[in-house]
Amino acid sequence: MKKAIFSTEISLLRRTMQRLLRRNAHSNLTKILRKTHQADVAQIMRSFNQLEQKTIFSLCPTSLHKARLLEELDEALIENVLIKESALNISKIFRYLDTNDQATIISMFRENKQKEILKKIEIDDKEEVEEIMSYPDDSAGSIMTKETFTLNQNTTVKESIKKLQSFPENDKIFYLYVLNDQDKLVGVVSLRTLVTSSNNKKLKDIMIKDIHAANTKTDQEEVAKTVAQYNYLALPVVNRQNRFLGIVTIDDVVDVIREEASEDFLQMAGVGKDREILLKTPIENAKSRAPWILASLIGGICAASIISYFNTLLEQLIVLAAFIPVIIGIGGNVGTQSSTIVVRGLATGRVDVANTFPLIMKEVVVGALLGGLYGLVVGSASELITGAPMKDLGLVVGLSIFCSMTIATAVGASVPIVLKKLDFDPAISTGPFVTTAIDIIGVALYFYIASTILIP
Amino acid sequence: MKKAIFSTEISLLRRTMQRLLRRNAHSNLTKILRKTHQADVAQIMRSFNQLEQKTIFSLCPTSLHKARLLEELDEALIENVLIKESALNISKIFRYLDTNDQATIISMFRENKQKEILKKIEIDDKEEVEEIMSYPDDSAGSIMTKETFTLNQNTTVKESIKKLQSFPENDKIFYLYVLNDQDKLVGVVSLRTLVTSSNNKKLKDIMIKDIHAANTKTDQEEVAKTVAQYNYLALPVVNRQNRFLGIVTIDDVVDVIREEASEDFLQMAGVGKDREILLKTPIENAKSRAPWILASLIGGICAASIISYFNTLLEQLIVLAAFIPVIIGIGGNVGTQSSTIVVRGLATGRVDVANTFPLIMKEVVVGALLGGLYGLVVGSASELITGAPMKDLGLVVGLSIFCSMTIATAVGASVPIVLKKLDFDPAISTGPFVTTAIDIIGVALYFYIASTILIP
Repeated sequence: MKKAIFSTEISLLRRTMQRLLRRNAHSNLTKILRKTHQADVAQIMRSFNQLEQKTIFSLCPTSLHKARLLEELDEALIENVLIKESALNISKIFRYLDTNDQATIISMFRENKQKEILKKIEIDDKEEVEEIMSYPDDSAGSIMTKETFTLNQNTTVKESIKKLQSFPENDKIFYLYVLNDQDKLVGVVSLRTLVTSSNNKKLKDIMIKDIHAANTKTDQEEVAKTVAQYNYLALPVVNRQNRFLGIVTIDDVVDVIREEASEDFLQMAGVGKDREILLKTPIENAKSRAPWILASLIGGICAASIISYFNTLLEQLIVLAAFIPVIIGIGGNVGTQSSTIVVRGLATGRVDVANTFPLIMKEVVVGALLGGLYGLVVGSASELITGAPMKDLGLVVGLSIFCSMTIATAVGASVPIVLKKLDFDPAISTGPFVTTAIDIIGVALYFYIASTILIP
Repeated sequence: MKKAIFSTEISLLRRTMQRLLRRNAHSNLTKILRKTHQADVAQIMRSFNQLEQKTIFSLCPTSLHKARLLEELDEALIENVLIKESALNISKIFRYLDTNDQATIISMFRENKQKEILKKIEIDDKEEVEEIMSYPDDSAGSIMTKETFTLNQNTTVKESIKKLQSFPENDKIFYLYVLNDQDKLVGVVSLRTLVTSSNNKKLKDIMIKDIHAANTKTDQEEVAKTVAQYNYLALPVVNRQNRFLGIVTIDDVVDVIREEASEDFLQMAGVGKDREILLKTPIENAKSRAPWILASLIGGICAASIISYFNTLLEQLIVLAAFIPVIIGIGGNVGTQSSTIVVRGLATGRVDVANTFPLIMKEVVVGALLGGLYGLVVGSASELITGAPMKDLGLVVGLSIFCSMTIATAVGASVPIVLKKLDFDPAISTGPFVTTAIDIIGVALYFYIASTILIP
């Protein structure tokens, strides 16, 4: 464990490395790389250009060093620094990576190169890597680590400690998983229990038998929720026959929780789900955002058609145009609040999908309360700022705000729930979709109410 | 470790408990509570009313049971179930809680009751609880646990294992913290290193000396980032003189990461920062959302004034009104994308506050790209759907979309950065603020461009 450094020091280190890069002071850079924590190097490399990233990677003194750095790098950077490396060099680095990281990295290459690399890595690793690559993305199988410590249930405490001592150094040993003669998972023993039990006891006498496990297809979000809810350090992964396959560890769960939160954020705003969007070029960035903007475009054109339809009304009462922004803006705002609350509630398990009617009703009540309040305020304000050019303008504006906010909460709360029930990600572009729906509904409502009340 | 259950089973259990509550079948409920994991009971209790929550809590068979349940309950529920309990009963339950949980719970009561409870708990605990209560909210000090295992650096491995065996059962022992004679933190030893080292070695010979620590005032988000970045299981907390005070453990870090993500989500949408908003009544809910709606109200009234100002123009060219929604909608949409990317980047440390100019410029380029594309599309569409009632309508609409999207990305990316630099939470109501700003800017731009191009 190298000493970690604080964010103020990171900036200093970044500037130093940038200067040394410019001066081609390679031996100095290698010295710095030798004593800096790889997590810090990975963070600094994000702000370097592709050539600089490759230089830094090539200057790492050993394959072990390169492996540690790869563990911390973003995927876009891994692709960049490895793209030109030979399969042989990659296989040398892979010796120091666990099979899960190997599988993740190999998946980044084209099929030809995948085969080449697989041929060059050790035969045991090859099988495990291919196994992990066979599981669906974002499943427990795809994020589990195979490097775990398992023992037969008839092993004694003394033998267990001896075996533990001969097992290669690995930070990820939190529990000993106990198997029966058929390699089925039957129990778990914490290191602490092992240390504090008498030497001659067998594992089956000290193990906890009631254990929670995921299967290979369990969604990583589900795994993360379980680990968080029950405060586990790791969750075992088994196949259908309860045969032990590997574990998902807490450090990977922490990454999953952060990634899923980021994805939800980006998806809700309609930016796609690429967590590394900050590392993309403006063109790539625009490409992933463009499709979601379409929603507001289509909504906008619908709204334009509706307003055009009420052309005659608008010609008589030109002042109506002034309140279009506030009616759709305030509706969009409160609708986004509702959808955010529901999306986050679904993600954290606080919203129960089986029982959503009371939740939607509650949102509608909140919408009506806020709509009543702000309808009154804007309705009165409208008469003031326009000098009340006609009777009932305030009533039309106020009533439209009330209706638009009430409907907005219903739409905002329902959209993610419907998405979830249809088995889509509830966060997918919920933001643009909700605001666009409210643009259309708000405008239609407003002109309908105006034509009903103002034209006898 | 009781067996954890899956979400499908949770629904079944909820219905069973609800039925037993209705029938007052208290002894059956106690039986269920005895064998169900407290995390599951806590989740189910969220959908019960306050009286039912109190009943469930009172039916827990022992004080230990109640303590385990309190550890998992949401704050609003803890307040509800404990409000009528006597200080004596609370102190009995507290015997099974670590000092951090005790401090969190005591802080919920009014000062009188706080003193009463503090008087009744053990003297050692009292001091520690008061210490934790003295640290600022959301600091490392306020979330650290004092129940840790520390040893002097001259202790031998054999003695250490012996002491570990006599230490009360605690899941949270991941590392042994090694202190010198002045109680200063000088190193750390993992349980695994302890188990695999020879008996006569001293801790100072096997410990890792280069360690990362937080101080009591370090923000919990900073602690979480460090633990996530370096894959730690716990982070020690020290005072200014490097005296060891306690540790923040990974399970608490997982909670912090989830909480901070939820808070960012809610704040960005302008819902306040109350993670338990789903548990609130509609009135309380509306109260925390109302202030943030004010932004769109003010923005809407500004937009209305601007449109009123261009009254004469609008009277001549009534068709302009039709494109107000699409210009502000599409701008708000792309602006929200930018601010979401930046807010999340700041939260995960991917955006470097010291170097934000390139980021804002990049967003502006993306805005211009998307603005060019959609300006062209909507400009052409506008001529089509209105039947081109005048020359240059498409040009006005297209150019307004281009300008509004370009400015929206600049505003969207800058607002969270400016908030961060002013030491505010960058997520605070960024969503409503950005969309409102773009409402005003978009409308003003549109009518300015229209009056310049269309009126000779």
